[in-house]
Amino acid sequence: MRIGIFGTGDVGRALGRGFAMLGHEVKMGSRDANNEKATAWASEVGALASVGTFADAARFAELGVLATLWSGTQSALNLAGAQNLAGKVLIDATNPLVFAPGAPPALALGHTDSGGEQVQRWAPQARVVKAFNTVGYAHFVKPQIPGGPPDMFICGNDAAAKTSVTSILTAFGWNTIDMGGIEGARLLEPMCVLWVLYGARTNSWNHAFKLLKK
Amino acid sequence: MRIGIFGTGDVGRALGRGFAMLGHEVKMGSRDANNEKATAWASEVGALASVGTFADAARFAELGVLATLWSGTQSALNLAGAQNLAGKVLIDATNPLVFAPGAPPALALGHTDSGGEQVQRWAPQARVVKAFNTVGYAHFVKPQIPGGPPDMFICGNDAAAKTSVTSILTAFGWNTIDMGGIEGARLLEPMCVLWVLYGARTNSWNHAFKLLKK
Repeated sequence: MRIGIFGTGDVGRALGRGFAMLGHEVKMGSRDANNEKATAWASEVGALASVGTFADAARFAELGVLATLWSGTQSALNLAGAQNLAGKVLIDATNPLVFAPGAPPALALGHTDSGGEQVQRWAPQARVVKAFNTVGYAHFVKPQIPGGPPDMFICGNDAAAKTSVTSILTAFGWNTIDMGGIEGARLLEPMCVLWVLYGARTNSWNHAFKLLKK
Repeated sequence: MRIGIFGTGDVGRALGRGFAMLGHEVKMGSRDANNEKATAWASEVGALASVGTFADAARFAELGVLATLWSGTQSALNLAGAQNLAGKVLIDATNPLVFAPGAPPALALGHTDSGGEQVQRWAPQARVVKAFNTVGYAHFVKPQIPGGPPDMFICGNDAAAKTSVTSILTAFGWNTIDMGGIEGARLLEPMCVLWVLYGARTNSWNHAFKLLKK
């Protein structure tokens, strides 16, 4: 299969390398047909790799991979040309992130609030810790799931409160992952919906998240 | 420790049962001090369990657990009384969900759009599949993480496109979980941020999500 990669960053280069490893022809597109990072990548990958403009890569591709910075995504697609992508599979590996100095990356679209933050505003003197929101109640206590224990993601503004909750979670049979301040609920609440949708799609409710690590 | 549970649903009952199992005294609060579900729960749990109003549970609690439906959360906290929760740890197990007939639950706060949906609008004739956005590029191909293979969550509007991408992910060494239409990007993009924040907090970048199942 002929693969077109849009973007020359780490994501595009890693996926391009992977597709070539599997025997696919890969063209890496960028704004400049002679982009240095693309050319260096192609030299490293070898005979299956080539470079070109975004439009070149779109015309070449049977399957496209979008691997641009969010800020450059719209213009990359414009340069690729809608007709060159018509009917083709386009893997979207981007994330709509905004980067501010000294702050972790945030989503450019979507959450600017959460239930957890709202609860903290409604109970301003309480030390709110978001927990038990990413798994079904049947597994709250001593979860027995192969590959476990699963991870409970928590967040909250008060460190001592999180220490207390972590002790409880340990006693309940969970590993705990602290995701920082209560604004982390913007991340944990979508995980609830993912948990529910997976259950609805598979008609099974015995699943729980784990962050594998090495 | 004395635990106050706010809410009589499955979540509150399961957590109340768990705390009592660990030897804590638990009072389940609701709008009505004689709530039938709370009373039945207390009979089942035994001597460590009691019931009362939200305010009773808040006064009783050294640690509170918020386990209300989202639509009743604000009034439950009002009834509990801010002063009764002052300085106390409050575990927030709620999710800000809205339920519409025939539709999966959605978040009441936050995402009404995503990068994936924007990409599909920018490339209307392409068959966009969100993938490779919840893990770092170093692990795209043949991820070697204990407990793996990890899961790649994907979404997109075209079933055949998702089948193609699933084949690719299999060849790349991933298990694939299809989360439905491209609007699923509202769930997958926050997972990217969670992946990044965990890396920043631990200064390690060799982690990937898995949905444990039984």
